[in-house]
Amino acid sequence: MRIIQGSVNSPLGFMASGVACGQKKNGDLDLAMVASDRPATAAGVFTQNVIKGHGLQLTRQYIRGKLARAVVINSGNANACIGEDGMKDAIEMAAAAAARIDCPAEQIMIGSTGVIGQRLNMPAIKRGIDLAFAALDETATGAENAERAILTTDLVSKACAVEIDLDGCRVTVGGMAKGSGMIHPNMATMIGVITTDCAIDQPLLDQILRQAVNKTFNRVSVDGDTSVCDMVIAMANGAAGNTSIEEGSTQAAILLEAFETVSTELARMIARDGEGATKLIEVVATGAKSSEDAYKIVLAVAKSPLVKTAIFGEDANWGRILTAAGYSGADFDPEDIDIYLGDLMVCAKGCALDFDEALAKKILQEQDIVIRIVLNEGNASDRIWTCDFSYDYVKINGSYRS
Amino acid sequence: MRIIQGSVNSPLGFMASGVACGQKKNGDLDLAMVASDRPATAAGVFTQNVIKGHGLQLTRQYIRGKLARAVVINSGNANACIGEDGMKDAIEMAAAAAARIDCPAEQIMIGSTGVIGQRLNMPAIKRGIDLAFAALDETATGAENAERAILTTDLVSKACAVEIDLDGCRVTVGGMAKGSGMIHPNMATMIGVITTDCAIDQPLLDQILRQAVNKTFNRVSVDGDTSVCDMVIAMANGAAGNTSIEEGSTQAAILLEAFETVSTELARMIARDGEGATKLIEVVATGAKSSEDAYKIVLAVAKSPLVKTAIFGEDANWGRILTAAGYSGADFDPEDIDIYLGDLMVCAKGCALDFDEALAKKILQEQDIVIRIVLNEGNASDRIWTCDFSYDYVKINGSYRS
Repeated sequence: MRIIQGSVNSPLGFMASGVACGQKKNGDLDLAMVASDRPATAAGVFTQNVIKGHGLQLTRQYIRGKLARAVVINSGNANACIGEDGMKDAIEMAAAAAARIDCPAEQIMIGSTGVIGQRLNMPAIKRGIDLAFAALDETATGAENAERAILTTDLVSKACAVEIDLDGCRVTVGGMAKGSGMIHPNMATMIGVITTDCAIDQPLLDQILRQAVNKTFNRVSVDGDTSVCDMVIAMANGAAGNTSIEEGSTQAAILLEAFETVSTELARMIARDGEGATKLIEVVATGAKSSEDAYKIVLAVAKSPLVKTAIFGEDANWGRILTAAGYSGADFDPEDIDIYLGDLMVCAKGCALDFDEALAKKILQEQDIVIRIVLNEGNASDRIWTCDFSYDYVKINGSYRS
Repeated sequence: MRIIQGSVNSPLGFMASGVACGQKKNGDLDLAMVASDRPATAAGVFTQNVIKGHGLQLTRQYIRGKLARAVVINSGNANACIGEDGMKDAIEMAAAAAARIDCPAEQIMIGSTGVIGQRLNMPAIKRGIDLAFAALDETATGAENAERAILTTDLVSKACAVEIDLDGCRVTVGGMAKGSGMIHPNMATMIGVITTDCAIDQPLLDQILRQAVNKTFNRVSVDGDTSVCDMVIAMANGAAGNTSIEEGSTQAAILLEAFETVSTELARMIARDGEGATKLIEVVATGAKSSEDAYKIVLAVAKSPLVKTAIFGEDANWGRILTAAGYSGADFDPEDIDIYLGDLMVCAKGCALDFDEALAKKILQEQDIVIRIVLNEGNASDRIWTCDFSYDYVKINGSYRS
């Protein structure tokens, strides 16, 4: 497997574009299209929020047809909580793209991200779809525009691609994502599009997508909030010409690894670009009695505003890490727990250590921080990515609608 | 029932004091004592965090004796995660107070709040206990000093008292509390001391304390973090001379109301004084299918950093309220839900309303904000207090240890 410079249009037969159609107040790109030159096998993972955006509701329905020609995503407006008109607009949005691409509407997956409770400007959206269709291309520019057009409060575009060899065929997996606030496990963490030219049947693609998402996108927490519009859509169009891969095969394992690599990179980029973030924090728990315990601990630590503000302040306040583990609901004995910041042990068997504060400070001044919690009670482990909590998080979210 | 100017030494037979003994770096008062002139019936509610401070562990043990002469609390150092020395120091702290008061050590309830993982300066603590014992008095000054001496990042002291009549006897209930960050339901939300001169047996005092705490202190969330040292201790010394009250009696109901009033006032003061808070937010859910659903919703909304930053920014972003309800895990139909800011309906049946933005802004400019979520599906309700999330929360918590 090789990581390459690339994105959603790196796999054969895929094109991408991003245009401005007036959904974002500042005139930025706000409508992205990713299209395959032939019907692609499609799979999706969707928010677990009870409240669901209208576009997402429609896409969940359309994806049951298991084929997609394109994903169309607008930013700036979530098309959520609008009632019947919201669903009508979503249907119209898919239909407009289908008319351009010349395919059944059910093969258009749509997404919307932005402010909740405001109706889409449909003439603008349709004009955007026309522009985006005309701009579709296989170049880096097309991909870069698509990446930018799905962003909301993100500061940087997020894309990644890898190449693998399957039976002598070169197969590419590419991806792009957005997500900066309202990021939390169990999907609903972001919007992502993963494309591949691999030939694969739908149930296996669905399985590989779910496995990859669970270990990666579902292991990012920015603020504990989950959104109503978020999803990851995968499209596989078979253009690489490989023999369709089968469940349980070596090829399936290689493709899973490629999906995981792309998703891991995108997930880390999302955490690093968390609203107001100055640092990427990886929280690791090892030696837990069960996977559930390990998950509860990394989740509680990654969500704790007190841990996140301490890391922002570069303060080796390990007591807050221990405290968060303590209220996580995980089953562990406080007298077994060790805590590390980077490679520096700061707490042994639940007790304070007289560690080198200057060294701790140096570790916390880095941009990538690893918090390691060793339970010393079993073999289960888990890991989650988050970011620190800064003044800018408050600033960004105190005035988002205005 | 009359609310009076008062505190923990308003009930007959109680004295209070607060002194400085060098636990806080800035020289502020940091050791409080609240003592009864006779053994008082005692009850306590303690943190549910797996990690527990050494003082709290000792107090949980001592309170099994069901009698207390005094509560001694230091701030500035939590005496937590120290191992055997921490427990030794806690035992010594209780013994030092017991020697002064001339009672068994088991009748001293101790508390410590502040930084985790640093050993107490025991000579200073003992000197503080001597000073605090000498300073004990029944005046407002004694109470005010005690209130100040338990504060950490709190900006204001928190006290409240009420008078009730039981069979012609005047009975007083007084209370003080601290809590500003690391505040979250299920105890562990703060430190509180409630005193009364009521005559009452221990099981009933314990029951009344738990009922009052559950509806009040367990309904405050500042940041979702729960601490390792927090507790509410109640002492009832019978000095009012009433006939000892019995379970199920009118008198018991009146005393419960008094406990709830004092606890409610203290809980609201804690939320209003949340670290960096500029507003007190009351989140109310009504019309839920079950109490559990109502609780899940108010908790998720009160914890959401996105809701709390929007309120700080005085932005009527009701979509975030709906979103938080959506991921709360509560069972409800999004198409039934109405949302109000103050008296202004901003979302009806899960859909956006074209409400008066200027009026919404005016409501959000107040210092007390009520968010009301009406599920329209049943009769269960719940309520929780929280505060907004400001730049200062980040500032305070980015540099707490330093």
